[in-house]
Amino acid sequence: MSTAKPTLSIIGGTGALGSGLAQSFATAGFPVVIGSRTAEKGAEFAQNLSVSPDLPRPTGTSNEAAAEAGDIVFITVPFATQAAIVEAIRPHVEGKLIVDTTVPLVPPKVARVQLPPEDSAAVATQKRLGPGARVVAGFHNVAAHKLKVGAGIDCDVLIFGDDPKDREIVIGLAKAIGLRALHAGPLANSTAAEALTSVLIGINRAYKVDGAGIRITGIAES
Amino acid sequence: MSTAKPTLSIIGGTGALGSGLAQSFATAGFPVVIGSRTAEKGAEFAQNLSVSPDLPRPTGTSNEAAAEAGDIVFITVPFATQAAIVEAIRPHVEGKLIVDTTVPLVPPKVARVQLPPEDSAAVATQKRLGPGARVVAGFHNVAAHKLKVGAGIDCDVLIFGDDPKDREIVIGLAKAIGLRALHAGPLANSTAAEALTSVLIGINRAYKVDGAGIRITGIAES
Repeated sequence: MSTAKPTLSIIGGTGALGSGLAQSFATAGFPVVIGSRTAEKGAEFAQNLSVSPDLPRPTGTSNEAAAEAGDIVFITVPFATQAAIVEAIRPHVEGKLIVDTTVPLVPPKVARVQLPPEDSAAVATQKRLGPGARVVAGFHNVAAHKLKVGAGIDCDVLIFGDDPKDREIVIGLAKAIGLRALHAGPLANSTAAEALTSVLIGINRAYKVDGAGIRITGIAES
Repeated sequence: MSTAKPTLSIIGGTGALGSGLAQSFATAGFPVVIGSRTAEKGAEFAQNLSVSPDLPRPTGTSNEAAAEAGDIVFITVPFATQAAIVEAIRPHVEGKLIVDTTVPLVPPKVARVQLPPEDSAAVATQKRLGPGARVVAGFHNVAAHKLKVGAGIDCDVLIFGDDPKDREIVIGLAKAIGLRALHAGPLANSTAAEALTSVLIGINRAYKVDGAGIRITGIAES
């Protein structure tokens, strides 16, 4: 990555995880573009983000326009709308790095692992976008409300992707907002973190907590 | 569980994880029966386990005889042999609690998640054994060589099963050998821990360590 910060577009950026990532990246000095179903909703949401005046002001627009504007495009939408939104942004992301955060939760049993036919929502996105898109998956296990708090999140981010260089870029982004992030193998391995999210939701219920996460043990801190 | 300790049979008990569990449970005072392909191999292996003279001496026999002898039956066999061995012990485990530790690793790419048609090796076992068997899954992510060391293993054990009471029994067994174990939802959720094992193997390689594990954060220690 060059020293100039890439523009990060957050598709579904008004949602729980998307808004948390948008606020975190904006606070870390990245140019952020919020994508939403309508340009008006995206713009309004961006205006409500709190960012220091010396940093780039986040902007908001439609998902399609946000995808067009971004150097790196985050997909943070519910599983139920993922396929349609990926299809909608497809003409705008050719050759770009896509960070898919989608977790295949199927209501009402969101604490039960229910994998899609491809075994992974990220693999489904890669298939939908074709070989021209560079899909990386991550940020599945971070409790969205903790992202907004900003610091000291006790959860690792597992980063999956078929190209180690693309994984490294996303690991750098995660580190820039204070998260420990790790190389976790090819995109197909995203299944593990996607499935784990349902497990964590169940653990939250069973142990009456609100933000169970994971740490990988046995490796040096970084 | 009554105060009398249940007899634990370890199918595939001469393998890496099986022998580690056998040694750990024997050291914790449980009657242990090692199951192996032949009764001779099982018996010989059991004789080599080191157990204090005031504790029950582990015995060894065939997988089938071990399954018959156990109150609780651990399955610790390679994925490639799981189906055949489950079929072989089926007549001997009706109504018993089965603890399936199988991870669906498909050589040579063991660091790549490759799920079975059922999405989970444990779900496959439950289907094979039918509703009469009480299948619980766990111990997927513990590095076998660390079990033998005995104490201070920095890895949680996620326990999956459709009956919370059966999960609780297995959680008690894990705690008896010094592991933190957690209720992680229905048997179908075992997919998450099974897939995570491939991820951890990849992390071991990427970060040049030999025993990456996981901890669940955000819940009280227990």
